[in-house]
Amino acid sequence: MTREEIIESVRSQMPEKRWAHVQGVMATSVILAERFGADPVKAELAAILHDVCKFWRVDEQAKVIRDNGLPADLLDYDKELWHAHAGAWIATERYGVTDEEVLDAIRYHTSGRRRMTLLDKVVCLADYMEPGRDFPGVNNIREKAEHSLERALIEGFDGTIRFLLEKGKRIYPLTLEARNGLIEELEAQEA
Amino acid sequence: MTREEIIESVRSQMPEKRWAHVQGVMATSVILAERFGADPVKAELAAILHDVCKFWRVDEQAKVIRDNGLPADLLDYDKELWHAHAGAWIATERYGVTDEEVLDAIRYHTSGRRRMTLLDKVVCLADYMEPGRDFPGVNNIREKAEHSLERALIEGFDGTIRFLLEKGKRIYPLTLEARNGLIEELEAQEA
Repeated sequence: MTREEIIESVRSQMPEKRWAHVQGVMATSVILAERFGADPVKAELAAILHDVCKFWRVDEQAKVIRDNGLPADLLDYDKELWHAHAGAWIATERYGVTDEEVLDAIRYHTSGRRRMTLLDKVVCLADYMEPGRDFPGVNNIREKAEHSLERALIEGFDGTIRFLLEKGKRIYPLTLEARNGLIEELEAQEA
Repeated sequence: MTREEIIESVRSQMPEKRWAHVQGVMATSVILAERFGADPVKAELAAILHDVCKFWRVDEQAKVIRDNGLPADLLDYDKELWHAHAGAWIATERYGVTDEEVLDAIRYHTSGRRRMTLLDKVVCLADYMEPGRDFPGVNNIREKAEHSLERALIEGFDGTIRFLLEKGKRIYPLTLEARNGLIEELEAQEA
């Protein structure tokens, strides 16, 4: 499937407003990849597909997770996390993506994980800060992203964790692990 | 060893100011145990011993953890966590405590853990809210503790997590698991 065919297929599965978000993540992923030395073609492909099933019915997202042996503990956590893992599976099955780096960047774009790859970081951060995003603190993330993927992502995860504390909702352990891992990376850089 | 002998020994290992804190945790643990149906004698014993090695040199605390097969990942996290696990080991070796409930309440009084027992909750909460504690939000914890161990503890853990976010420090995964587990308990009660 060509890039354009994938784009048309993804676009057809979501409202126009969400498609504008995906375009923002595509452009931002390319910029961040070039800024921090990741592969911009892989970054854009992961960005195109990152929300492919975000607007599927949640029971369909859950079915992909259950039927294909994806981590079942996801279903105990916020539904917001499901589309990332289901999306990586769909990227392979429907769009023929086999590059594990691209698949991981799709799979962990919402939660993060302990040892995030450069591509994981680029796509996850682009999703936080693409130009259409407008939430308290987004400009702090954008400022940090001028210089450090890690500091910008920590800022993003901090906001997510504060939001969940505020709402009295559970925090997915991988998000905490991702933040802990980024702090360790910064400490190692400074040591 | 009698209760009085244990008290004298523990007291001799810390500054007077910390001993006042321990007395506060003892009294509060008994009150909370009676309020929520835990064993007040066990709660008081765990409270007496919870900070037994808090004022030992940190390398001695680390040595207890390393030499006795206690969870080694602790040493990668905040030193504040070490005395709890080392303390539970010392409670058995030096003071002859063999009651696993009491030992767990000592061991998890700082971090919490996923499935906290009633005694774990009582001692951990008493440590947050004893009368000598004075930090922003402590009165919210005390108010919630009039009615719900779980809500009061979530309030306590939320404060700890916010503090660590603010400081840019890592968050120990068990603390997150403890909070997630308490939210699940409340959801199950409401369902």
